[in-house]
Amino acid sequence: MTAPTDQTGTAAPRTLYLEDVAVGDRFVSGTHAMDAAQIKDFARQFDPQPFHLDEAAAEDSLFGGLAASGWHTAAITMKLFVSSLPMADGLVGAGVEVTWPKPTRADDILHVESTITEIKPSRSRPGRAMVTVETLTLNQEGEPRQRLVSRVVMFSRTQG
Amino acid sequence: MTAPTDQTGTAAPRTLYLEDVAVGDRFVSGTHAMDAAQIKDFARQFDPQPFHLDEAAAEDSLFGGLAASGWHTAAITMKLFVSSLPMADGLVGAGVEVTWPKPTRADDILHVESTITEIKPSRSRPGRAMVTVETLTLNQEGEPRQRLVSRVVMFSRTQG
Repeated sequence: MTAPTDQTGTAAPRTLYLEDVAVGDRFVSGTHAMDAAQIKDFARQFDPQPFHLDEAAAEDSLFGGLAASGWHTAAITMKLFVSSLPMADGLVGAGVEVTWPKPTRADDILHVESTITEIKPSRSRPGRAMVTVETLTLNQEGEPRQRLVSRVVMFSRTQG
Repeated sequence: MTAPTDQTGTAAPRTLYLEDVAVGDRFVSGTHAMDAAQIKDFARQFDPQPFHLDEAAAEDSLFGGLAASGWHTAAITMKLFVSSLPMADGLVGAGVEVTWPKPTRADDILHVESTITEIKPSRSRPGRAMVTVETLTLNQEGEPRQRLVSRVVMFSRTQG
């Protein structure tokens, strides 16, 4: 069985088990509108560097303007990912790789597009698999802000 | 020149240029005390899954109790990393790999220990290098909560 691809990001997708997904399945999230206040608020708490906190200081940095922390982009990505790929037992990552080709800006409206790239059934535990998902975070122009590769555990319906 | 290792996490380390670091240098941060309110607040904003939001729901999950989002651990790691490894032009990651061997719990007091594992000078741009840093996030018992490998750009003093 193949999972329905949520292309709109508006429908509430049903809970997904291992049987519901296949390599190549693609999930598109809803959107998150960034703004300068959110960028500075996250930075004050977690990444207090001048180019994330202050427009004037950011002008003189290698970003040439206020830029969101990569970890802020990652956190928003998780929010959009969780709502667009509702795995039955939760989305629990064993490990991830993240790259940030360009930082998120204050006027970006972000969404994420996730594709299942590999499903590796567990040999020792039937009804369980390690699923690799590639998640691109894009702005309203389709410009990539983050590429995330996650390895997540999925369970079959009968093991749920 | 080798950078002084900040073992206490209390001294304000000086700004670091490429000349100031060597493979094997180690930096120990100050601490961050987690609590249930922070775990739930971050989760409400960025990772609203039951095991990050509610003690009772978390008991029945694979975590067996309230667990911080891995992205929350990552964000706190960045805060501790920035304060313990003050690179001259900021800490800008080109890419990272993250694994979470166990989730952060509400009573964890976190600190990070960063080790420079590779320095690769740029061929095309002298005075610039890609530096690989391994950052372990540990609780007060020394139990690992996150392993982060970052590739960051560093500049020499003369290029600054």
